[in-house]
Amino acid sequence: MSDRPLAAVVGVGTELVTGLRTDTNTAEIAAALLGAGFRVAEMVRVADDATLISATLRRLTGACSLVVVTGGLGPTHDDITREAAADALGVSMSRDPETERRLQTFTSRHRDPDARRQLFTQADVLEGATVVVPTLGTAPGQTVPTPMGHLVLLPGPPAEMRPMLATLLATLLATSSQAVAPARLRCTGLTESDAQMRVQRALESHPGVELTILASPADIEIVIFDDGAGEAGVAGAADAALEALGEDCYSRDGSTLAQVVVRRAHEVGLRLAVAESCTGGRVAAALTDIPGSSAVFTGGIVAYSDTVKTSTLGVAEETLAAYGAVSSQTAAEMAQGVADSLQADIAVSITGIAGPGGGTADKPVGTVWFGLAREDRVRTWQRSLFGDREGVRIRATVEALDAMRREMQGS
Amino acid sequence: MSDRPLAAVVGVGTELVTGLRTDTNTAEIAAALLGAGFRVAEMVRVADDATLISATLRRLTGACSLVVVTGGLGPTHDDITREAAADALGVSMSRDPETERRLQTFTSRHRDPDARRQLFTQADVLEGATVVVPTLGTAPGQTVPTPMGHLVLLPGPPAEMRPMLATLLATLLATSSQAVAPARLRCTGLTESDAQMRVQRALESHPGVELTILASPADIEIVIFDDGAGEAGVAGAADAALEALGEDCYSRDGSTLAQVVVRRAHEVGLRLAVAESCTGGRVAAALTDIPGSSAVFTGGIVAYSDTVKTSTLGVAEETLAAYGAVSSQTAAEMAQGVADSLQADIAVSITGIAGPGGGTADKPVGTVWFGLAREDRVRTWQRSLFGDREGVRIRATVEALDAMRREMQGS
Repeated sequence: MSDRPLAAVVGVGTELVTGLRTDTNTAEIAAALLGAGFRVAEMVRVADDATLISATLRRLTGACSLVVVTGGLGPTHDDITREAAADALGVSMSRDPETERRLQTFTSRHRDPDARRQLFTQADVLEGATVVVPTLGTAPGQTVPTPMGHLVLLPGPPAEMRPMLATLLATLLATSSQAVAPARLRCTGLTESDAQMRVQRALESHPGVELTILASPADIEIVIFDDGAGEAGVAGAADAALEALGEDCYSRDGSTLAQVVVRRAHEVGLRLAVAESCTGGRVAAALTDIPGSSAVFTGGIVAYSDTVKTSTLGVAEETLAAYGAVSSQTAAEMAQGVADSLQADIAVSITGIAGPGGGTADKPVGTVWFGLAREDRVRTWQRSLFGDREGVRIRATVEALDAMRREMQGS
Repeated sequence: MSDRPLAAVVGVGTELVTGLRTDTNTAEIAAALLGAGFRVAEMVRVADDATLISATLRRLTGACSLVVVTGGLGPTHDDITREAAADALGVSMSRDPETERRLQTFTSRHRDPDARRQLFTQADVLEGATVVVPTLGTAPGQTVPTPMGHLVLLPGPPAEMRPMLATLLATLLATSSQAVAPARLRCTGLTESDAQMRVQRALESHPGVELTILASPADIEIVIFDDGAGEAGVAGAADAALEALGEDCYSRDGSTLAQVVVRRAHEVGLRLAVAESCTGGRVAAALTDIPGSSAVFTGGIVAYSDTVKTSTLGVAEETLAAYGAVSSQTAAEMAQGVADSLQADIAVSITGIAGPGGGTADKPVGTVWFGLAREDRVRTWQRSLFGDREGVRIRATVEALDAMRREMQGS
């Protein structure tokens, strides 16, 4: 066991323990605490049950120096985290006048008088707590001192929780942190075992670090934790791993593939476009998720029907008739067509069979053709992608983004 | 509180509490237990720490009639769930000869003598336990009687866990189950508190059910659980809730909004298209996520730059100059333009400011104009959407899909 301070994460909400709603918050908070040097021993999700929440918080605040709770801070009758936390710590609550004033501006949204009254329960603050003003939403966060450290209450909606978590970590940890953040390398274009072999060998001469490989349909992530080597040791190990991975590694700062593509396009001053069939808009959506993408992404055409492939992208009817929509020839004409009509420097096309239907002996589900047009040259390639409809669509989206990235590498 | 038997789910593994690995097991098990009539009060993820696992299992088996644990049953030194469970229940372990025999066939995989020895720890069975033979992998599951009911140990890899969970539920519940599946109503176009008020009032004359409201940027979901009313009671309550929600409820069978839009378009024989600016391909991606969408979705144009709005969608340069890209006039011309060029019966356009940049005093971040073209008529409307870039994009996507749904309602 290490001497890192102990932390626990609690998700409150009956919807979380029914398995009906996906809970991303607790994992996100745990990862942030890990990066900040805490050891998370336990993550708990509990139903909206005052007795149970209170017992859980009493137990965890008695064992951990930091307990972060998410959920149950809203304005409905189900939102009982504040009361339960006050009960667990044996402290009182009082209405925060500042928050009450802020909530006044939201009363117009609520037609029902009971809903209006409930709205103000969000201003109830635990004795000794520091209020974290929300940048989004109505529910404030709270940081409450405990005998062992702190209890932190954050709202449940991820968009409201996230900025508060960032603030919390910045302030709470400014004092205590000698934590070494793990190095995280993201890769595409190689298998999990290949990544493991290459990196393990590279790290043989780097003691004092711990390696974890996380594989998902979207990418492979290599995480290098400090285990005595310190900050310089982790950085040295990351350098060695990076060298072993070469161009297959697209980021070592946590950036996503789409972020890397948009950033690189900015740097080299190239404009991108995409013509999508089986990915149906996912490549465009991934690029436009990135703020500032409008300067480098001119647009995309989702050509789901053959009519659109001919009318909007200018694919010849003879091409479709002779080779089919999922072919090198169609991919080439789609890429060239969208580059021309959307005035892009680099355009990628994707046409394939995502399933579950549409596969043939010749072109089974997972067969995807890609095209990349740059100036007047077009190249095409084919991949046999693995997985169900969702898996094929994710992998095809990653392949298209990665082709843009590699194309711009040398630019 | 209801009289449903209490259950808890435990995920064991240090990788689960780092937040780096997505845990789908515990949610999957919770959903299965819910469907089988249990009330899951608590879900816990713990690190590979014998003391902590043992304390957790002691606490939960003392409170719940069913505790399901996943993970930590493999052959490595990290796999300590068996020992911790024996310690928690105060029972001994013995080697199961049947399992030992089965494991003999796997010894050839392990060259290392220590690894071979470890392999057989998987045959250690708790006193009184029933062994669940794996269909995949080497680790057997175990069902152990406890004073309050049962403790069930399942392996961590989802492909190994899943068939055992199914067997477990079939056998364990054959005796006790009179489970009623919850009713799930999904809605758009109203706030969480409004939904709660409307449904709560409607359910006043329907005792024996329990209500949960799940709100996300994408929708509001109303879940009605059985709490004594039985199957007919839940169905009656769902009917009452549906009447209170009216057209704001788009599904009562768990279908997503995009599924409802695609199904409805099939039924009424209409072809859809979309012209997207700030949603950047998300509406197209949501529709094409649905198998069979190719028959009703002709395609989409992601017009991120003004050039594309004029060249591909036929928006007049004068319109952009006079009113700007985020305006009723541009939304109207985008919708009409995409309907014409992609030959659709119903076309929706989205143009707005998703942020974080680009907002003005006149048109702040979150300002989004929508257009809907059908035959030769176009109508437009504006929404001030709440949230960060991601939130605005999700809400704008839902608004566009919902406009298609409501438009086809009367068709």
